Amino acid sequence: MENFSFKNPTDIRFGKDKIDGELRDAVTSFGENVLLVYGGQSVKHSGLYERVVKLLDGLNIVELPGIAPNPKIDSVREGQKLVKANNIDVILAVGGGSVIDASKVIGSARYYEGDPWDLVLDSGKRMKIDQLPLIDILTLSATGSEMNRGSVISNPQTNQKFGTGGPNTPSISFLDPTLTYTVPTRQTAAGSMDIMSHLIEQYFDRSENNDVSKGMIEGLMRSVIKWAPVAIKDPDNYDARANLMWTATMALNGIVGLGDVNGWTVHPMEHELSAYYDITHGVGLGILTPRWLKVVAQDSSTHELMARFAKNVWGVDADNVDDAANQAIKETYDWISSLGFEMTLPEVGIKDETNFDAMAQSAVETGNLTEDGYIKLSVNDVKKIYQDSSTPENL
Amino acid sequence: MENFSFKNPTDIRFGKDKIDGELRDAVTSFGENVLLVYGGQSVKHSGLYERVVKLLDGLNIVELPGIAPNPKIDSVREGQKLVKANNIDVILAVGGGSVIDASKVIGSARYYEGDPWDLVLDSGKRMKIDQLPLIDILTLSATGSEMNRGSVISNPQTNQKFGTGGPNTPSISFLDPTLTYTVPTRQTAAGSMDIMSHLIEQYFDRSENNDVSKGMIEGLMRSVIKWAPVAIKDPDNYDARANLMWTATMALNGIVGLGDVNGWTVHPMEHELSAYYDITHGVGLGILTPRWLKVVAQDSSTHELMARFAKNVWGVDADNVDDAANQAIKETYDWISSLGFEMTLPEVGIKDETNFDAMAQSAVETGNLTEDGYIKLSVNDVKKIYQDSSTPENL
Repeated sequence: MENFSFKNPTDIRFGKDKIDGELRDAVTSFGENVLLVYGGQSVKHSGLYERVVKLLDGLNIVELPGIAPNPKIDSVREGQKLVKANNIDVILAVGGGSVIDASKVIGSARYYEGDPWDLVLDSGKRMKIDQLPLIDILTLSATGSEMNRGSVISNPQTNQKFGTGGPNTPSISFLDPTLTYTVPTRQTAAGSMDIMSHLIEQYFDRSENNDVSKGMIEGLMRSVIKWAPVAIKDPDNYDARANLMWTATMALNGIVGLGDVNGWTVHPMEHELSAYYDITHGVGLGILTPRWLKVVAQDSSTHELMARFAKNVWGVDADNVDDAANQAIKETYDWISSLGFEMTLPEVGIKDETNFDAMAQSAVETGNLTEDGYIKLSVNDVKKIYQDSSTPENL
Repeated sequence: MENFSFKNPTDIRFGKDKIDGELRDAVTSFGENVLLVYGGQSVKHSGLYERVVKLLDGLNIVELPGIAPNPKIDSVREGQKLVKANNIDVILAVGGGSVIDASKVIGSARYYEGDPWDLVLDSGKRMKIDQLPLIDILTLSATGSEMNRGSVISNPQTNQKFGTGGPNTPSISFLDPTLTYTVPTRQTAAGSMDIMSHLIEQYFDRSENNDVSKGMIEGLMRSVIKWAPVAIKDPDNYDARANLMWTATMALNGIVGLGDVNGWTVHPMEHELSAYYDITHGVGLGILTPRWLKVVAQDSSTHELMARFAKNVWGVDADNVDDAANQAIKETYDWISSLGFEMTLPEVGIKDETNFDAMAQSAVETGNLTEDGYIKLSVNDVKKIYQDSSTPENL
């Protein structure tokens, strides 16, 4: 187990209709000038937008709508202008991870004079400056952004998509599972895959004997494996939505990665897919994850952990490690496929290898995969995974 | 899953020798007047006392030694005088849960004019007043006090032992597993039993479908089950000490009980034992827990959870629920016994039933066991558990 420091003061308000009694006090505890950030039409269709505006009646609300999935730096630039021009006290993000991610960087950009893309490229810069308080109302269970310091921002002009960390987690996060009832099947599936991927990235880790993290992750994995199909089949199932929502938060609020060495691999590979082709992050993860697990299983140093994954997560009772690994990978593949995903790159519109070299190069660089990957991967290894992802698996 | 609110801003510094580089800055960030609280001679024998005093060289250190296990209200009263008389800025607790528990209430007593026992009897009073910042250096893996708001304080004059909650968790907690190398076998065992009991109390809960908490708890249980015997056999095993330490903190920092209904039962029953007889808390828990589990298993509404406990925690593969429950209880009993405990009350000096009626009455009242217990228990039910605990089990 590695040394670590950990502090996460986000105030979580979990449950049905929490915003009705608590949102206004939460917002006004920081001030009266509010930047309301949201995405497309879904918060209007669902009635949430109107409900929030009513709850904040009388406060000075400035709006920043139109945050896209894989949030773009242009939205952050627009937000920067608004928070400066309107002397904003607090940002209220209503939406999923993209809206919260963008809001965090806007919160930092309030205290920065230059282009906020500088802050994305250099988190060190962000850590030195202040950040506006952020309250969020989560509408999608996926990224965990509601209880961490991270954001992922895309720059379509440069085909870049980078993670950036700020000094603060959200101040207050409202987690109401009923607000995810209206999430379409495909987004529910993609969010669930994102949760599962966060857990897999932290589980397959080179720290030794960290049973605290591993044990908790196994429980969280079983939760998402169990409840994602239920939420897809029965979108208004409270227990399914509640378990997915809290699992998503716990999967990436920092806790289950404590004491780990950390070697995230699939995320950097996927970020290239969505930077180049703007595909849904969770869908890209679903395609890449089983192919990556196959590469992992070929390395004998991973066998003990792979067998544990098979047994404690998938309930596989196999005679030997190879069988355990194969069965676990097949279970993983089948579960992802059962969520309704396309399972190859051509099915999501990535029909040739044109960009594979550049993408592999960039993934290895940003993830430092030749050094830090759970299994160290070269550019060629990553390219091979993209190629493997282009044809159906036969497991 | 029940609604909840959660915020826990304790800053955790985990790992070997963290205090050397970070303690002084941590303390001086709050001020120069420090109340140093500790227990008996063990921190002097281990060299930790001298090391801490050296790290704080030049600051104004006022000492409050002599905090006993099951910390007494008299120590809190003494601390209250010292923090007021010396204009203390920050309390530094060096020790286990008892030292941290007492320090928390002293921190509140700084801002209270009356007898601090009032604050123990009425947590509502404490929540309304301020609390001095608290830094701790943990030397025993057990209570989780290093990352929660709770304390348990005893009043020997009245044979009372009560839990009390304040407004704040510790500001900064140093968790160095190597500082527990010198913990004697019996205390290591008692601490591990305390951890296991915290997990059991939260696991057996009437909330429905809270798979996030249940899954994480199962992982934490497997961690303590695995590593406690290793630490007992090999006290300098870093992995064992590290897993126990972080499991202890995670077991009671609030997270794994979120969304639960909460119905702690064994703790109120045990608090009577240690209030009346001053036995070690973990030893009392070890005696009571298997007897309580037997009562639980008799209630058919618990069968599903009992079977899950058997399978996911103990790896029991049984044909029916009765067998699963019996095997799980036997595994639990054997594990506790393997830690070297006395397994009956007479062996720890509680040789007759003199106080059973009064103790059962008080346990039911403080735990509200007729209403809130996971299995609702009457005074007679509790008395029966004390009686069952007086003879060896035949499992």
